Amino acid sequence: MLSIYTLDGFCLPREMRVIGIRGIPLVQPADNLAELIVNAAGKRRLAFQKGDILVVAQKIVSKAEGRIIKSDDVIVSERAREIAEKNGFNPVHVELALREASSVIREERVLITETKGGQVCNFSGVDRSNTEAGSFILLPENPDLSAQRIRNQIRSILEIDLGVVVSDTQGRPWRRGSVAVAIGVAGLDAFKHNRGKRDLFDRTLKGSTVCQADEIACAAEPVMGQGAEGVPAAIVRGYRYSQGEGGAKLIVRPIDEDLFR
Amino acid sequence: MLSIYTLDGFCLPREMRVIGIRGIPLVQPADNLAELIVNAAGKRRLAFQKGDILVVAQKIVSKAEGRIIKSDDVIVSERAREIAEKNGFNPVHVELALREASSVIREERVLITETKGGQVCNFSGVDRSNTEAGSFILLPENPDLSAQRIRNQIRSILEIDLGVVVSDTQGRPWRRGSVAVAIGVAGLDAFKHNRGKRDLFDRTLKGSTVCQADEIACAAEPVMGQGAEGVPAAIVRGYRYSQGEGGAKLIVRPIDEDLFR
Repeated sequence: MLSIYTLDGFCLPREMRVIGIRGIPLVQPADNLAELIVNAAGKRRLAFQKGDILVVAQKIVSKAEGRIIKSDDVIVSERAREIAEKNGFNPVHVELALREASSVIREERVLITETKGGQVCNFSGVDRSNTEAGSFILLPENPDLSAQRIRNQIRSILEIDLGVVVSDTQGRPWRRGSVAVAIGVAGLDAFKHNRGKRDLFDRTLKGSTVCQADEIACAAEPVMGQGAEGVPAAIVRGYRYSQGEGGAKLIVRPIDEDLFR
Repeated sequence: MLSIYTLDGFCLPREMRVIGIRGIPLVQPADNLAELIVNAAGKRRLAFQKGDILVVAQKIVSKAEGRIIKSDDVIVSERAREIAEKNGFNPVHVELALREASSVIREERVLITETKGGQVCNFSGVDRSNTEAGSFILLPENPDLSAQRIRNQIRSILEIDLGVVVSDTQGRPWRRGSVAVAIGVAGLDAFKHNRGKRDLFDRTLKGSTVCQADEIACAAEPVMGQGAEGVPAAIVRGYRYSQGEGGAKLIVRPIDEDLFR
């Protein structure tokens, strides 16, 4: 990948490529995701490279981790029934969202919760699409750990360290339409910090922190899609991302820092 | 660009490319942006193609439109002084943010406003970085119109219709770190609508609307950067985006739809 180095030593890629990984089979509980992904890529002569970021859709991570619940197995609580009735929601869906939540933030028209895994999202991320009829799919219990596990699996198969982002699509409180976000991150910093960098007029940029993990998730979405396309993973190549630890759990603002709660 | 067609006729790109356009000179008021961009691309033998989306940083759009104010020319109101004092903000910065705002949403620790142009953002998007000392740069008055103007300029130079996105970086209320967003859109729908599409298990996806304009802005940010890199435009190639009208003004939720105000 061609790149330039500017005076302050920062390096921008000239070009970034985003490549969908097709041909990944329907994922079953306990599958080794890295194996499925590496095999599918291999069949298409797509080799992973140092510096690549592997983006994996939350849905297949959840499936591999057995995070699927059959509706018939769910006993709906009184509270879930109330929320479902006043909003016209599916009671089982509400029940599962409440079980996954550490707190309910809003329950009118939407059901926004903070999940036990630390996400703030609608219905605790519990979803019905792309699963068998009569079942629901839950978010991974610890998506950062899921990302780390995939990274370790890839390392043991290919002896290469990739960045890994587990992505999901979420709505936004003040912008319409959902966008992909990072719910799990391994092998890279969730953020890139422009602190100390200089702008074009040589003044220091202060407090400019970009959530590179969310941008990576967004960049991958166009080749992954949402519906029947079935492309649950992608490679982002050429992004000179910031190294770092901490995972996606650092992205969601704690309640005292939240600008609207 | 290789692509696949799935059973429902939806087409996903196999690969998307994001290419930074280097060598654009410092922009002056009344510059023809399309000309500067096309010339810079041409010098690097980078040809625009049908289906390309041109992402342009808000900053150079504002500069070309003369949206720069010298601090010395600004008389600070009482209200601006109050807000500045209690938060430790620059009073001129606050004054300009108030002038650009149709309403102030929050003025503690941050200064979140709704701008007359329809954005909800910190300090009405008024910014000091990458401008000469002692001056501030304002958002374009009508960023959708700016995008349309660039699209028209490109058409008259190259006889090609590009999608155009004017991008800016914004903070988020419940996620840390800023990400790029689309504040102006022309030649494409701000959204892609998955309504009516089918998921892997043949159920119709309902209400799934992705803000493709914001995702495009995010995808371009890694090759554009924030600081001294000075790459204020990029091409996103291979995204099979939804056609449509309406502009970025449809993205910001009206107040009755906003989940937190």
